[in-house]
Amino acid sequence: MTTYTPPLEDWRFVIEQVLDAPASWRAQPAFADLDAETAAEVLAQGGRFAAEVIAPLNGPGDRQGCRWSPDDGGTVRTPDGYPAAWQAFVDGGWPALACDPAVGGQGLPQLLNAALFEMLIAANHAWTMYPGLLHGAYEAIKATATPELRERYLSKVVSGEWLATMNLTEPQAGSDLGLIRSKAEPLDGTLTSGSRVAVSGNKIFISGGDQDMTANIVHLVLARLPDAPAGTKGLSLILVPKFLPDGTRNAAWCDGIEHKMGIHGSSTSQMRFERATGWLLGEPGTGLAAMFLMMNSARLHVAMQGLAHLEGATQKALAYAQERVQLRAPGRPADAMPSGGASGGPDPIVWHPAMRRILLTLQAQTEGARVLAGWIGLLLDESEQHPEPAQRARAADLVALLTPVAKAFLTDLGHRGADDALGVFGGYGYVHEYGIEQQVRDSRIAMIYEGTNQIQAIDLVMRKWLDTPRRIEALLDEMEAEAAACEARADLAIEAAALREQIAAIRLAGIDLHAARAHDAQAVLAVADDALHGLGHALLAWAWARMARCAERHPDPRAAQRKRELSRFGLTWLMDDQAGRWMRLRQWQRPLPWVLA
Amino acid sequence: MTTYTPPLEDWRFVIEQVLDAPASWRAQPAFADLDAETAAEVLAQGGRFAAEVIAPLNGPGDRQGCRWSPDDGGTVRTPDGYPAAWQAFVDGGWPALACDPAVGGQGLPQLLNAALFEMLIAANHAWTMYPGLLHGAYEAIKATATPELRERYLSKVVSGEWLATMNLTEPQAGSDLGLIRSKAEPLDGTLTSGSRVAVSGNKIFISGGDQDMTANIVHLVLARLPDAPAGTKGLSLILVPKFLPDGTRNAAWCDGIEHKMGIHGSSTSQMRFERATGWLLGEPGTGLAAMFLMMNSARLHVAMQGLAHLEGATQKALAYAQERVQLRAPGRPADAMPSGGASGGPDPIVWHPAMRRILLTLQAQTEGARVLAGWIGLLLDESEQHPEPAQRARAADLVALLTPVAKAFLTDLGHRGADDALGVFGGYGYVHEYGIEQQVRDSRIAMIYEGTNQIQAIDLVMRKWLDTPRRIEALLDEMEAEAAACEARADLAIEAAALREQIAAIRLAGIDLHAARAHDAQAVLAVADDALHGLGHALLAWAWARMARCAERHPDPRAAQRKRELSRFGLTWLMDDQAGRWMRLRQWQRPLPWVLA
Repeated sequence: MTTYTPPLEDWRFVIEQVLDAPASWRAQPAFADLDAETAAEVLAQGGRFAAEVIAPLNGPGDRQGCRWSPDDGGTVRTPDGYPAAWQAFVDGGWPALACDPAVGGQGLPQLLNAALFEMLIAANHAWTMYPGLLHGAYEAIKATATPELRERYLSKVVSGEWLATMNLTEPQAGSDLGLIRSKAEPLDGTLTSGSRVAVSGNKIFISGGDQDMTANIVHLVLARLPDAPAGTKGLSLILVPKFLPDGTRNAAWCDGIEHKMGIHGSSTSQMRFERATGWLLGEPGTGLAAMFLMMNSARLHVAMQGLAHLEGATQKALAYAQERVQLRAPGRPADAMPSGGASGGPDPIVWHPAMRRILLTLQAQTEGARVLAGWIGLLLDESEQHPEPAQRARAADLVALLTPVAKAFLTDLGHRGADDALGVFGGYGYVHEYGIEQQVRDSRIAMIYEGTNQIQAIDLVMRKWLDTPRRIEALLDEMEAEAAACEARADLAIEAAALREQIAAIRLAGIDLHAARAHDAQAVLAVADDALHGLGHALLAWAWARMARCAERHPDPRAAQRKRELSRFGLTWLMDDQAGRWMRLRQWQRPLPWVLA
Repeated sequence: MTTYTPPLEDWRFVIEQVLDAPASWRAQPAFADLDAETAAEVLAQGGRFAAEVIAPLNGPGDRQGCRWSPDDGGTVRTPDGYPAAWQAFVDGGWPALACDPAVGGQGLPQLLNAALFEMLIAANHAWTMYPGLLHGAYEAIKATATPELRERYLSKVVSGEWLATMNLTEPQAGSDLGLIRSKAEPLDGTLTSGSRVAVSGNKIFISGGDQDMTANIVHLVLARLPDAPAGTKGLSLILVPKFLPDGTRNAAWCDGIEHKMGIHGSSTSQMRFERATGWLLGEPGTGLAAMFLMMNSARLHVAMQGLAHLEGATQKALAYAQERVQLRAPGRPADAMPSGGASGGPDPIVWHPAMRRILLTLQAQTEGARVLAGWIGLLLDESEQHPEPAQRARAADLVALLTPVAKAFLTDLGHRGADDALGVFGGYGYVHEYGIEQQVRDSRIAMIYEGTNQIQAIDLVMRKWLDTPRRIEALLDEMEAEAAACEARADLAIEAAALREQIAAIRLAGIDLHAARAHDAQAVLAVADDALHGLGHALLAWAWARMARCAERHPDPRAAQRKRELSRFGLTWLMDDQAGRWMRLRQWQRPLPWVLA
């Protein structure tokens, strides 16, 4: 009933025409050999894998779910077809896509990895949870492990022969990692990077904590060494494999899995470590720093989940709206009539204004979000690989600022968009058959994990916006340049004006946020969510203006015209949504009441 | 894990202090004997039933769901405990609450019935689906049936001994009832009210189409008689019992049930009528008119679902936020500290600004929505029972205008509110245990059935607002009076100003909507959703202003202060959300593009 079509043409447009990524690649020695055609071919193959191998497992996996058994220390069976699909993914070399060739990777840009993951998630979010943490684990191990540990674990993670997990959350420690209680005790007398320790504690919400897709599992566990200080400074990162190098089963037990709203095919495990053997990754007390190392790429990965749900929901809703015939649509121009529509009778609902507005909104948000996400991917590569230190620093500043916005704003859009798309189906949207209600359920989790969206807003405002003014200035420079480029074109006056309005709103918001923080410790936190969504909408405005300006470079004139119209729609119809957000930043002057119960 | 506390004190405040319903009852002969104390006692008993009998079945019923079997023409078993709870409901006389004493009812106001149903739905939406259509069926049978049919079916429906269904939707006919194909053929030669017919056709999404709670089921079926005109004018309403008066099984088969996103305990049936015996309700071709007879009360019932989910989600999220301790909350005043909170350490998350804002929003929306819904219930009674024809007409005008707004706006708020409440729980919100993810799933359907929210917006704008200006004028008179009453009080200047702003926005919106309609048949439909949400927000502003003004009458001074602060919060923090909605009404001047695929 549901099929998935990879948005290959749109990714090419974003990579080649909107972002001109190939020019950036040529300037970066790591990617100097990569050209647009090769990149497009990689994505075409990745899209084929998504559509042909894992998309068919999406609905069945949701209905079957994971099954836990207490045998063998607690084991999880993933849905039928999951392990075989994983093997195919490994055989295709996909886990290694953006890893360093020096350790067996393919050395391709993170931008391409992000695009690949958009397609994988859109095809099957639950399945893609398993490789979702792999790149982050690769980065953490690569940056912190001793040569011996790297030798033993890194190539297996790069190849995907073994999957990895992140063990952060405990029942009492969610957003507040400082409350982590898991303990690690030295086993060899020493306490330095690579030392052997015994890990004990309970972890929850561990994605892939157990599964039947790989022969071993590499757990990365946050725990406290003896006499470690309280709070996050006392956390160390420890590598705890399910099976020890000698093949014996380590005391890392899976006590059960959660029964969740969605992503039923993902094994969300309760883990219990009982003096399990592990090895310190990095020096004692550097656990949180190691987490921060992979934070930007992990958050971009979750942002891609938001984009993927927008794309998937849009595809489903549009296909249904073109088929479903109800009532007469007013004022439909003759040349807009689909071949199947009988004139005078009821019309495909795609032509009813209320439905058309939902679908256009989804399309405009999807394409704008893809430009934004692609840009962050490109900047992430530049921040690591660009030969010019100034360029690296500027890219790193922008990544730091944009990542929390993309994580929270795009996952909000993805979930709300899926929910709006469900409405296009009427009563059929509420039943399992069309897959859209699953999309609503699956998309909700992305707003929660990897730092809740409220935590992202605090990170954005307190750390990224107010404390480091050069970051928002770098973004405003970029937006000003885009506005100026649009102003140079007579046909883009509306785009330029809309973008200028957002630039002015961001500057005003900065004044409000500084004033709020000076006024009251909690006033600025009360409006942080508005600041994040305001900035998110402003970034969409930038993306749409850029899309409109670059549309003429699109090889297909009809597609180019479509992009111009979608951009114009976004900039004229959808900016009103954020007007209230910007206005509400002013509310810090009127504190939230304390009365609740 | 989840408990439900009926909002009895708040309903008393709304009924007695905000709406002064007892004064209206004294003016209506049907309710002249009813006083505030009796009404409160009825609600207290209803609340007890909701909390003690059906709330405990809510989570288990979701997990167990309904089970269909092909035996005996297709039968459905409801979740464990549902039939016994129904018997208790019948024994308590609850189905008859708002029915005419002349046919065995208790003759209480629909306002009280609406309040009762808010509590039932909040406790268990799925279970409450079964009686949800009963009052509508009662109204349809009472208004259209011959004395013989009334004799045979009405008292059983009033008592709840038999449940009823509405059979409208067919696979090809959802929002477009004119496409209904089910047929009815005369069996006795005559074709008039009460004539016997044979009904054939397929119906889908029939709530309670089969169930094991009552010995018989009274199906009300929309079908076409021979030679009926095409479209909705050719529809007739037919009563088709599951068991015929002589006890034989009628050919009304249940071919299966839907597997849905939520309300798993509700039997959503696929029905097949194979020359099933039925009787005409009313004259041929009056089927749709009969549906319209019960539309206002049915839509108010769905609006109560929105309110119920707001209330239920608020209760759950607040209880969790008071228990859950994470991170230090900035700037929390000492007197706001809950007994359990250790100073200096992590705080209950209820004191974190981002959480407090979500919770205050939920509380303000819930209480404002309750005033609005209660007012519509009161007006519904006055439109039917008031001795003054002018008063009846005015009440009927307001009901006609407000009902589509309440149905769509409150169900939107209920679903989005439940979704926001889920966020308060972090990762725990995504698992079944706390019941909040079920609330998100259950609440989604209310935006779809009984006319999708998009259909409500079209009904509001085209039929209720533009075509009959006296209706919006009646509402504006009411709002102006409230604004004037607030202006007379120095402490309510902010409330008065906020309400005046909304009155001005509604007048301006009327000008835009008329201009849009004159301009283009589809332009006005493209902004209908904004008009509905704008009006919904303006009605909340009216409700909050009125709440603030009436707060001094609250018997508990602390509760009175809380209502003043919540109202002020709603009128200052939440009105910005709608600013964009009002602004976007202007967009009709810039038509939606046609480009989609």
